[in-house]
This record gives sequence, structure tokens and C-alpha cells, in this order.
Amino acid sequence: MKIALVQLNYQIGDFAGNAAKIETAIGRAKAGGARLALFSELAVTGYYPGDLLEKKEFIEEAEETVRALAGHCRGIAALVGAPAINRGERGKQLYNAAWFLEEGRVKDIFFKTLLPTYDVFDEYRHFEPNPLFRILELEGTRLAVTLCEDLWEEQPGPGEYGITKMYRKSPLQELAIYRPELIVNLSASPFSASQENRRKEILARKASTSGLPLVYVNQVGAQAEVIYDGGSLFMGPGGELLHELSYFGEDFRIIDTGERGKPQLQPPASGTEKIHSALILGIRDYFLKTGFGDAILGLSGGIDSAVVAALATEALGAAHVRGLLLPSRYSSSHSVDDARAVARNLGIRHELLNIEPATAAFSAILAPLFSGLPEDVTEENIQARTRAVLLMAVSNKTGAVLLNTSNKSETAVGYGTLYGDMCGGLAVLGDVYKTEVYRLARLINSEREIIPLNSIRKPPSAELRPGQKDSDSLPEYPLLDQILFQYIEMNMPPAEISAEGAERTLVDSIIRMVNRNEFKRFQAPPVLRISTKSFGSGRRMPLAAKF
Amino acid sequence: MKIALVQLNYQIGDFAGNAAKIETAIGRAKAGGARLALFSELAVTGYYPGDLLEKKEFIEEAEETVRALAGHCRGIAALVGAPAINRGERGKQLYNAAWFLEEGRVKDIFFKTLLPTYDVFDEYRHFEPNPLFRILELEGTRLAVTLCEDLWEEQPGPGEYGITKMYRKSPLQELAIYRPELIVNLSASPFSASQENRRKEILARKASTSGLPLVYVNQVGAQAEVIYDGGSLFMGPGGELLHELSYFGEDFRIIDTGERGKPQLQPPASGTEKIHSALILGIRDYFLKTGFGDAILGLSGGIDSAVVAALATEALGAAHVRGLLLPSRYSSSHSVDDARAVARNLGIRHELLNIEPATAAFSAILAPLFSGLPEDVTEENIQARTRAVLLMAVSNKTGAVLLNTSNKSETAVGYGTLYGDMCGGLAVLGDVYKTEVYRLARLINSEREIIPLNSIRKPPSAELRPGQKDSDSLPEYPLLDQILFQYIEMNMPPAEISAEGAERTLVDSIIRMVNRNEFKRFQAPPVLRISTKSFGSGRRMPLAAKF
Repeated sequence: MKIALVQLNYQIGDFAGNAAKIETAIGRAKAGGARLALFSELAVTGYYPGDLLEKKEFIEEAEETVRALAGHCRGIAALVGAPAINRGERGKQLYNAAWFLEEGRVKDIFFKTLLPTYDVFDEYRHFEPNPLFRILELEGTRLAVTLCEDLWEEQPGPGEYGITKMYRKSPLQELAIYRPELIVNLSASPFSASQENRRKEILARKASTSGLPLVYVNQVGAQAEVIYDGGSLFMGPGGELLHELSYFGEDFRIIDTGERGKPQLQPPASGTEKIHSALILGIRDYFLKTGFGDAILGLSGGIDSAVVAALATEALGAAHVRGLLLPSRYSSSHSVDDARAVARNLGIRHELLNIEPATAAFSAILAPLFSGLPEDVTEENIQARTRAVLLMAVSNKTGAVLLNTSNKSETAVGYGTLYGDMCGGLAVLGDVYKTEVYRLARLINSEREIIPLNSIRKPPSAELRPGQKDSDSLPEYPLLDQILFQYIEMNMPPAEISAEGAERTLVDSIIRMVNRNEFKRFQAPPVLRISTKSFGSGRRMPLAAKF
Repeated sequence: MKIALVQLNYQIGDFAGNAAKIETAIGRAKAGGARLALFSELAVTGYYPGDLLEKKEFIEEAEETVRALAGHCRGIAALVGAPAINRGERGKQLYNAAWFLEEGRVKDIFFKTLLPTYDVFDEYRHFEPNPLFRILELEGTRLAVTLCEDLWEEQPGPGEYGITKMYRKSPLQELAIYRPELIVNLSASPFSASQENRRKEILARKASTSGLPLVYVNQVGAQAEVIYDGGSLFMGPGGELLHELSYFGEDFRIIDTGERGKPQLQPPASGTEKIHSALILGIRDYFLKTGFGDAILGLSGGIDSAVVAALATEALGAAHVRGLLLPSRYSSSHSVDDARAVARNLGIRHELLNIEPATAAFSAILAPLFSGLPEDVTEENIQARTRAVLLMAVSNKTGAVLLNTSNKSETAVGYGTLYGDMCGGLAVLGDVYKTEVYRLARLINSEREIIPLNSIRKPPSAELRPGQKDSDSLPEYPLLDQILFQYIEMNMPPAEISAEGAERTLVDSIIRMVNRNEFKRFQAPPVLRISTKSFGSGRRMPLAAKF
């Protein structure tokens, strides 16, 4: 059977826009001779609508959109993801459903069984699990229709104790009595750099253990924090990868489920290359989907802001990125040169504003209250916040979105000023450890020097007081990042982290910094997620805890 | 049987502190002749620990604490809430459990069946539902041990379609075959002003339909955003309320499950009185549990900052609250007088700082970039952000936490400057509509004038440009608040809201304002929750949606 794998970038709640894309793809699939067009999970609404799913008018418009799409399915069938109302008397009000459209109408609906409710996922908040297993017969072929997590029942939870499966049910086992001949899966599976191969491994195991070919369609595109990477695929019954669609872009391909020819795969990419693509897509989609065109950012001469400027320029175009150089008396002379150099290399507009008159005004205003008190972090924060006021003023005046340039390492330990350098509409590097920022910089420089080598080579510093360096109070970044990764991504207890080499007192002090700064991250901008545990909606820590 | 109802205020993750309180109460219960001491849900960890539940060292310390507490249960039994590890091979790694302690050891464990996963609740994120129903026999009496939501299976979800029950199972029905004689319930049930009687109604229905007496112990105290109000109770088998413990404070009472005497209830309180108590507890606990002692806030002369100052003074004491008056050229002369008056009435320290030198410095710095461009909201935001820099400077220098004074009405429609008046460690009124702020002001003034009548009577204004009034671009607050309540709390579609009287164009424009400002609220401080739908962790809206 010929099936069209339709990999699209949806906007949440844009029913007209999403439906237009879906309708076009149905036409293209039909013209290409496909019997079935396969779309991703919650395609009609975009994944994930969150508490919009609690709004009646949202649900009703979703259902109307599906029914209208059904009208376009003549001479071709489609499986489209959208919520479905639970018409029973008990349970959550919705199912996460695959709507089967054929002969101009809704012919069947299949519900999702396993509802991910961990990390960034909140599905049990809105959906009732599928209570009843059924098969889809299409042209004499029996299809096991599954949605995303339905194939992931093996995965253990975070910090598990000997648990091997997070779920009690296996949809494929339940469906086995119907002797399915093909597995189809409608997905919305986010990108994470450290798990790049896990998805393919799990899908291959599902195909090979059931001995069935598998067609998997993923969503692509960023939804504010979460980036969906596409990579839809078709596997043979041994789990062999036969077709692989693009990553980080829309794609379309018609496959024949009987074919076992030469695989058509994507070119291999390194982890850093994937992160690079993910962040560019993340920036581009944030602007597209919020309706903004221009970005502004502070250029300090350091590596973080240089990398963000380069990514933003690639995502939005040089004409849409503007840098402000905001040096203070503590900025080293080369900082301004390095900031100017990256702006020139990228060809972006940039201006220098001297923040001293404003910080001096603040000092004078506060003098009656602060007289006799020693300088401390307060004065450093005033500098950072003065910069934020200037950046936000230009943002407000021009309608450009301020990009935040904090990296994950400093966000983790709280090296950032709330309402200062923690400002911004989007934190581009908030899930990128400093050591990875260096790799990104070298990748960006691989063809020509865009990020000044000086920005890469000089010791990292916030330059908020004379001679300040990050290493004054933090270990070197490779060690810091390792400890942070083990604590944040791996949930390893301090004793286990320390058993791998780091001194226990250092581990404890870093963990204390992470936990003490929960309040700052609570008010941080949305972070582009590229790991399995990003700050933001996927990490929900209590604010007033003592642990 | 004599049972001690132990209503305590726990700190999340403070195992030593929580255990000390529990141990003391066990001793007191035993001395009072109680056979059983009943504690609230997740008492040992505090409710709700969030993703700390994914940390092995957290779970292990919780279990060790429970086992140590068991050692103190000799001659008395206790039911204590704490997580329990799922020792099976499938499912989530934990159960939300009631640990039965007796004879110096853990004698039994009961698991929670219905796991609330909506609004602020995330239990299915961490817990596996109870798979097996059992009864607890104590001195020949059969106890149905339940945890909070286990008694709430009747509640429909938000925006339900004819659904009458959110859950498919009823723990009490499952337990009926064991012929229980008493229902006990360990709870962590938050306060919400609009639902003040719903809890008692539901519990009374459970007692009367099963014909069993019911003992209910709730947590008390605020955990950053969420405020737990206590009000533990004992009901007779007809659902008649016989004992009711304090609201918004710790309490302890030994009841006899056979007694049917004169009810010992709490004095009635109005909705506004309860909100007042809740906010004071919310402020006090935020400071206690984060380890801060002092608060600072901006006093504008308006009603919001005056009410926050009064609440903070009651919560922390006048010596621990400091006000800054930060007028600009647009501040009316009476604003400074009104701000001074409330500070004097409360006896709090206050200073006036002139923000003009800083705003003038910003204008001068930005002049080369802004020359020829008209004044707009940018200049208003610079004023608000200049105030924030000054408030945060004093906060940083003195270690005082900045209190945010934005109310729910303005937070909803986005009338607030991000990184300006939206700053703060805690948003005291972020869940209080403006019309309720007026009621709070009148309540605070009920004995003597604390909030100047002028602050109450004058038309609300942000005073960021000459003659500005909130009513320039918003409807009057009673109408605005009604529309917001229907949209936010009730999830009513625009057509239904408009059918109740408001013009459709107005309804649509307000809803657009709510949705367009999701990005601002994403970075807002934690909000003290007093409603059924507060901004913050209980409302999860997508950021880049088009709806």
C-alpha cells in the first residue's frame, strides 16, 4: 500500500492555517497515488495546546476542522491527529485521537492509550486513556493505529527503582489478537540532543519484535520552548530503516509498504550540528508564530551573545537582527572590539550606548540610602539592569524581540541578574551548557571566522567588577557542566556524582547553588529545549523548599 | 475510638523539621488518650514536592524519616502521608501513600487511587494509582483509608461535556465489600475563595451516602503559590459536621468517633475575610520558608500597593516592611500624600526617591536612537523599569524581598510592565481581581483608617503619562472582572459571556488582551492562589499560539 508521510509544521490553535496545509498535502498524496495520507499527532490543533484544551470553543473548532477536512478525502484516506470529545459519563473530557477520514466523512476514530505525563508532557491533564482496542482495515490490510507514546511503553521513568516499564499496558500486545500487518504511528516527539538515536532504537525494536513494518510521522517545528525535529520514517519488519524524512524542516514522501529497496536516509549530522539546526528552527518559529520579525540583543564581546547573534542572523536574516553594545567602566577594551567584530562579520546593525550616565544616576538617587554601606552585588546588578532597561526600550520602540543570551551552566547556578541579563522574550542558549556553546561557536566558524577567536579564547567573565572572571567562584566549565548534567539530566544523587571523580564539597556547593536559584528561573524567559531536561515547563521544582 | 486530628504546616523537603512536628504531635495524641494520630497527605515531605520526587536521595530520606517516626508509635498508632516506592516492575516509580505505624514499626501502607492531574495538581506525573483495595483494622474497627482526591471521584473536569465523574473508579465503592465502619482521609486541599463550601458538601455527601462517620485531616500553610487552609473535620454518618479545626493555622484536636454531641465549629467568616487570612498566611509562609525576614515594596499612593503594605505589615510586622515612594512628573500631588499616609498609618519605614535623574539619563542615552520618533509606551515602561531597578537595588542591598503589587485584573489584560511593576519575589494580589482589592481595603479599614480613603475613592491610574486613567482603555472594573472571571475561572466561550450581557466586541477585545499577554505572565512572579484558576502553575497556556 502506498502511504504518504506528511511532516508539517503546525501552529497551535491556527485551525485555518493548519487545515490549509493538511488539505494541500491530501491533494498531493492523492495525486501521487497514495492510498493513505498520514499526519502527526494533534496535527489540527498543533502539539501541545495545553489548557486551550479546556476551552469548549477550541475543541469545537478542532472537531469542525476535522469534519471539513474529511470532505477532501475522496479517493484517498487520511489519518489526522486531533482531540476527540469523550462522550461517556466518566473520565477526562477528551481523547487524544487519530481521526480516520475516507469517502468524504469521518469513518473511525482511534484513541491514544499511553499518555505521557512527565518532563514537558501533560497529557493526562487533559486526556482519558483509550479504553478499547480496535484495528483499522484498509484495502484488506490490517493497520495497528497508534499515537506516539503508545509505542514507548518500555520506557522507565526518571529515577526509577528497578522499574522497567512506565506503563501497565502495551497497545501493541493488546492489538496482537487482531493480527495487524502494519503499524502506523502519529507522533509529536521533541528533539533532544542526548537521545538522538533512542527514538529509532525503540521504533526498530517495536517493528522487529512484532515482525511488522512501521510507518511513523512526526511533527516538525518549534512551539515556543519545545522543538519537534521531524525525522518521520518507514521501517521494514526487521526494524530496518528504509525511509527517513528531513530533520528540522517540513517534508513529504510517498512510500510503498511492500518495498524493501535501498534505504533513503538523511545525511548523518553531529550532535552539535543538530543542536545548531534545532536552535535556528526554534528562533525562526518563535518569531513566525508570535508574529514578530526583528530581534535585538546585547553584544558583550563574549562568546554567548556572539553565538546568539550568529544563530539569530541565520534564522531571521541580517536585516532583522540588531545588536547593542553596552559597555561599562569594567568592560575590557577588547570586549567592545570583539562585539563590533561579530556584528560586522554578520552584517547586522549595531550601536554603542554608554550606560554610565544611567548607572551614575542610580548611584546618586540611592546615595542617601546606601551611604556607608560597602559595594556588593547590588552595584553589579544595577549595571545589568540598566542594560536591560536600554535593550527593552529599543525593543518596545521598534517592536524587536529581545533575545536572551544566558547559557544553561550560568542559568543553573544562578549567575545572572534577574530583570537584568536574564531578560528577554526567548532564551536561545538556556538549555545549552557552556562547553557546548564553545562547540557551537567552532561550528559557526567552520567556513570563516564569524565569532572572533578572541571571544572564544578569553576566560569567560561577566565584567561587572574589575578583573572579574567566572572561574573566581566556579570550577572550570568542563567539570561544572559534567556535575550539572549528572544532577539535572541524570538525577544522580550527590554521592554518586562525587563517586565519579568530583570532590563532594564541590558537588554539594554546586547543587546548593542550583536549588537556591529556583526563584530566578521561575521568572526566566522561555528556553529553547534541546536536552532531556531543560529549565522551564519540563522541570517543576517547588519554590520554597528546604532540600 | 479516640483519634487525634493533627493539622500542621509542613515545609517541603524539611524532613527533620517536619518529623519533629509529627513526633511531638504523636506524643501529644498519646498523652491525650488517642488510639490513632491522623496526619495529612505527604506530611513527611510537605505537599507538593514536584520533581524533587524524581530524586532518589529525596525519596530515600522520606522513607527513612517514616521508619524513624514509626519508632515513636508505641501505645498509639499513626497514619502519616509520605511517598512509597513502587517495588513492582511496571508503572510510575512511586505511590502517594498513607503509612500505618504501630508497635514501633511500619505495619501497613495504603496507596492513593485517584491522582489529581489538573489545575495546580501534577500527581500522575509522579505517582502510580493504587491497584489493590484493602481495609485497615484497628481495635476491631474497620477503617477505609483514603487520600484526598479518593473522595472526590464525582467531580467533573474543567469544560466537561456531559461528564459527571472525572474518574472511572470509586475507592469507597471498591472498599464497600469490606464493610468499613469509618472513613479516614489524609488531605492536602488548597484554599479557593469561590469554592469555600464545596469541600464540606462533597465530604458530607460521602459520609451520608455511605452512612459512615468521616475523619478528614488537611494540611495548612502556603507552599509558595498554593495556600492550604486546614479546616480538618469530623463528620457523623449523616454528614453532619461535628468538629471543625482552625482555618489558616495549625491545630490539634482529639475526637471520639462515637460522639454525636454539640458541634464544635469555627466562627463563620466572609469570603473577603478568608482571602485576607489566606494572603497573610501566604506572605508569612513565603518568607518563613525561603528564609527571608524583610519585605520592600513601592508605594504609589494607589489602592493595590496600600493593600499589599497592610497585608505585609500584618504578616511580617511593621519593623520588617519598608516602602519606597518613587514619584515621577506624572504622579499627582496627592499620590505622594496618600503613599505617605498609608506608610504612617502602618508605622513602616518609608523613603522618597526621585526617579527623574535616572529616566532623564535613559532619555539622553537613547536620544541618538530615538530622535524623531514619537513618545509611546516605551517611555512609560522606562519609568516603570527605573522604579524596578531602584526597588531591586534596595532589595539586593538589604536582603529584603520585593513584593509585587499587581492585581489579577491588570495581570490578565497585560496592564503592567515586564521587568517594571511586574517585578517581585511574590505577587500578593496576582489572583485578586480589582473589585476584590476594594473589598480587602474596606476590610483592612474596618477598625480604623489604614488605607487612605483617597486611595480607595480616586479613579485607578498607572500615572505614567499626564491625566492617564485605567478607564481610558478598559471598561469599569466590575464589568471587566466579570468578563475575566467567566473567561478564566469558568472557561466560558465568548458567545456565552456575551449572552450574559456584555457586548460581544468588548468581550472579544478583552479575551484578545488576555491571550496576547501570555508571554508577560510567563515571566511573572509566583502568585498567591486564592481562586480556582490562578495565573501560574495551575494555568498552562501555550506561548506561541494563534487562538
